[in-house]
Amino acid sequence: MPAKLTILGAGSALPTRNNFPSAQILELRDKRYMIDCGEGAQIRMRQMGLKNTRLNHIFISHLHGDHCFGLMGLISSFALLNRTAELQVHGPLGITKLFEQQMNFFCDGIPFKVSFQEFDTLQHKLIYADRSVEVYSIPLKHRVPCSGFLFKEKPKDRHLIRDMIDFYQIPISQRNLIKKGADFISEEGTTIPNHLLTTAPDETISYAYCADTAYSEEIIPIISKVDLLYHEATFAGSETLRAKKTMHSTAEQAASIARLAEVKQLVIGHLSARYKNQDAVLKEAQAVFKNTILAEDGKVIKF
Amino acid sequence: MPAKLTILGAGSALPTRNNFPSAQILELRDKRYMIDCGEGAQIRMRQMGLKNTRLNHIFISHLHGDHCFGLMGLISSFALLNRTAELQVHGPLGITKLFEQQMNFFCDGIPFKVSFQEFDTLQHKLIYADRSVEVYSIPLKHRVPCSGFLFKEKPKDRHLIRDMIDFYQIPISQRNLIKKGADFISEEGTTIPNHLLTTAPDETISYAYCADTAYSEEIIPIISKVDLLYHEATFAGSETLRAKKTMHSTAEQAASIARLAEVKQLVIGHLSARYKNQDAVLKEAQAVFKNTILAEDGKVIKF
Repeated sequence: MPAKLTILGAGSALPTRNNFPSAQILELRDKRYMIDCGEGAQIRMRQMGLKNTRLNHIFISHLHGDHCFGLMGLISSFALLNRTAELQVHGPLGITKLFEQQMNFFCDGIPFKVSFQEFDTLQHKLIYADRSVEVYSIPLKHRVPCSGFLFKEKPKDRHLIRDMIDFYQIPISQRNLIKKGADFISEEGTTIPNHLLTTAPDETISYAYCADTAYSEEIIPIISKVDLLYHEATFAGSETLRAKKTMHSTAEQAASIARLAEVKQLVIGHLSARYKNQDAVLKEAQAVFKNTILAEDGKVIKF
Repeated sequence: MPAKLTILGAGSALPTRNNFPSAQILELRDKRYMIDCGEGAQIRMRQMGLKNTRLNHIFISHLHGDHCFGLMGLISSFALLNRTAELQVHGPLGITKLFEQQMNFFCDGIPFKVSFQEFDTLQHKLIYADRSVEVYSIPLKHRVPCSGFLFKEKPKDRHLIRDMIDFYQIPISQRNLIKKGADFISEEGTTIPNHLLTTAPDETISYAYCADTAYSEEIIPIISKVDLLYHEATFAGSETLRAKKTMHSTAEQAASIARLAEVKQLVIGHLSARYKNQDAVLKEAQAVFKNTILAEDGKVIKF
């Protein structure tokens, strides 16, 4: 099953007629991960018929309102929908305190646990892992502590070659080890090397989310060759100075990062509400990195 | 100019595909008043092209999230739009403290002042007045302290009868007093009674907002004969017991209140997300009070 990215909010701080503030849902190996939770994230979920099952982790990039003002409403609605599974909110240092008062007041007695997990946005670190996916922070350059997120599938199992498994009569108890790359040693002590028993595993999928950030080549080694990169592109090239001043990126800068990191596909978003013609901004990016698409509310990207 | 009510959010706690949580804007005598500010209120304003000019007062009925989670985003966006005029948020006791932490963090240094004005939801009292409008609290019955709002235009000036003003050569300095109802005393000491100089003033407009509340006849004297009544109708008649338990109203109960209070028009909203066929719920209300309409996001009601 491919990965699926659903854009709930593609806009920047000021929502537009069509685009809410930042929020996305990544679906990977049957689990859902929310990335940022701007105002209206739960509304978009309801509009798109997206359930909160298998969504147990929310990753907040930074504590600007357009990336987290949807949290309280989302948690409240999950409670009304009788959610029982714990929800973990991963966010920058200080997020727990910032939501404590309202959590205590509005979410007292809800039927599930919400736990805030803080991480240091200055470090590139593994901040979460489950059986199949690892999530790393990506230090970004913004006016407040800010982090992107790298989602990486863990290496998958190798595929057993059915005929060879039968031929060597490999017992079931050994097969999981062989899928992980082990050789097989027969009862007679003969070693059958793994490459005779298995074929290469499926490729793992990776997704990097980088918002909000000034142009920063320091992230390139981290996001190198990902299948899909979301990079903010708040401004067109005509506003390069403003981008620098506000610590945002232009479409061209986002595309340069994609090209230098040799990613497979780029999706740009967080375009300023000033651009009525977003296609013109998209073209600026495509001139530098051809395989670029535009984030729009409701868009689903399979990769 | 008639009054105008714009429904930004007609839904109840769980937003639906079409209806956001509670929020409205009342326009009266060239001023705008926001009533409740559920998540997405600012988004609807942007979608509908509604500006924040002449909107200086927000009235929050109660501290359930679906009536106030839009506040932080709205204030933040007003700041980005370079608002400078003070914004007053009128709400139940405790609202200041509840938003203090996030206001301090997210709204430090914004270009306008936000002041929270608390009032006691248990009392029917004048909570705000400007030159032309008075706003009264309406004690409601809900699971938490909750108040409706009665907007009443102040009595308008009487109309001068131009011919009579000329005939008695009434000086400009006297005319404002006569508009307010004073008699005119000529230089010779003759009293010209006001009714010879003026005709009756235009009728004043009144609007009452009642959400969320269990059925309560105690509000009837307060909302008697208003031009427009918004009354919540969370449930259909089949859920009367649930309405009672959750301290909400059915459509029929909302209509009964409208009939007993002899209001001119009723708009029902806050319908539970469970009702896919809202028209059926509307019909239950219309059977009791014919002049009932349904609140829907984006609807504009002139009255």
